[in-house]
Amino acid sequence: MTFMNKLRAAWKRNDSLVCVGLDPEPERFPAHLKDGPAPIFQFNKAIIDATAHLVCAYKPQFAHYAACDAEHQLERTIEYIRQKHPDIPVILDSKRGDVGNTAARYAVEAFERYEADAVTVNPYLGTDSLEPFLKYADRGVVVLCRTSNPGARDLQDLDVGGRTLYQKVAEMAAERWNANGNCALVVGATYPKELAEVRAIVGDMPLLVPGVGAQGGDVEAVVKNGQTRDGTGLMISSSRSILYASRGEDFASAARAAAQALRDQINTSRHRH
Amino acid sequence: MTFMNKLRAAWKRNDSLVCVGLDPEPERFPAHLKDGPAPIFQFNKAIIDATAHLVCAYKPQFAHYAACDAEHQLERTIEYIRQKHPDIPVILDSKRGDVGNTAARYAVEAFERYEADAVTVNPYLGTDSLEPFLKYADRGVVVLCRTSNPGARDLQDLDVGGRTLYQKVAEMAAERWNANGNCALVVGATYPKELAEVRAIVGDMPLLVPGVGAQGGDVEAVVKNGQTRDGTGLMISSSRSILYASRGEDFASAARAAAQALRDQINTSRHRH
Repeated sequence: MTFMNKLRAAWKRNDSLVCVGLDPEPERFPAHLKDGPAPIFQFNKAIIDATAHLVCAYKPQFAHYAACDAEHQLERTIEYIRQKHPDIPVILDSKRGDVGNTAARYAVEAFERYEADAVTVNPYLGTDSLEPFLKYADRGVVVLCRTSNPGARDLQDLDVGGRTLYQKVAEMAAERWNANGNCALVVGATYPKELAEVRAIVGDMPLLVPGVGAQGGDVEAVVKNGQTRDGTGLMISSSRSILYASRGEDFASAARAAAQALRDQINTSRHRH
Repeated sequence: MTFMNKLRAAWKRNDSLVCVGLDPEPERFPAHLKDGPAPIFQFNKAIIDATAHLVCAYKPQFAHYAACDAEHQLERTIEYIRQKHPDIPVILDSKRGDVGNTAARYAVEAFERYEADAVTVNPYLGTDSLEPFLKYADRGVVVLCRTSNPGARDLQDLDVGGRTLYQKVAEMAAERWNANGNCALVVGATYPKELAEVRAIVGDMPLLVPGVGAQGGDVEAVVKNGQTRDGTGLMISSSRSILYASRGEDFASAARAAAQALRDQINTSRHRH
């Protein structure tokens, strides 16, 4: 089962474009979890079990594990999803970018060590830095295109001969990097106009859209500008507003309610357009 | 002792612009190390002890640890350098790049978990993605500018209003990102012309130059085009041609000889120009 097939099946089965970002911040965990063994894994496990019927993907953010020596809890988290919820694809959000032989090691890390279905990568080093990932045809390669932060303007919006750098990245993704049909792009929710431009360039390619929720992106504009003709094509990612919907013992049910609310809000928007 | 001060002192004390890349590939280790405990740490330790008087920096490449579940051996490697060779700065080559709050976690990873003196970062996400690193004023932030791989052309060489994208990155580094005096740039050895252009933009800012040795960069052209007026300003990085100079039990003394030869070759070039 390839990443793309898993994703399409999850969009349909769960009627959901919601991707839950697994960005553990132990200082925000409910008190009863903080002092137990493997608190990050236990937190993730509860979130996953509460939301697996509501999402199209999970996206663990590598930095949140790396900062606190929790790579093994990341391994356990992905393994848990693969065992208990094997229909939900896992995107390792580690934004790798390096030269060829080193990129090959990062591909081993993402796809063999962690067994992720997809990984996020940075395009600054160009085609040969992406190839070691792209050649895993059954896995997804999600390339940064237009990110959701203010500084995205510094490089990504620069004019490169009549179009912006991020539009050029979208073109390269559509024309060069997608030979195996396993390429996707990151386009932030905070810039809906850019989302429409990228959608026009890449056809039905899936777009991972962070920035709704805590970062303030407008769900209706995201859906309107980003969806494909069949009303899919998006992985709308939310982390903090789901994970920390409650900081009490009811955190998992509060996360379920927040994920459900986001799914419903998205679905209202996509049925309207 | 800041990264920049450590680096300047090491340039002088060891009369060396050589940076040894610690990119362990266990399949290339000598047989007697392969089956022991913590082979990556033991390999690195022997390389470090054999070369510490010949180098201006060490640069462990994160992918080579991440691919084989060896983060703790990376921690031990950096800790060993800090204890036994505290005058040699350590650059964690992990090319991080993410939005603000996540970048802050990566800064914790590099500077607090691993206690690296400097870290490599990717500029594609712009200023606010670099700030969490830059605000550690005593640590170095080494921004990718013009990399040594063929695909560097795809984005980095694009014209952005009369100059290339990598020149624009060099300008931003000089004008915006270096308020704390802790910024450096990566410019590959395989493109000496680009090195001269970047040097002209950034004044005395240190440049990390990978790509001599296995990747074929020309040492004399690198020194001529990249050195500052006082004959320093460069961290010329070599990994495989030093680490795997011999695959027998004499690997450490062979690494010492290879590092010494590179240092001497560099010094002959810089005294000539």
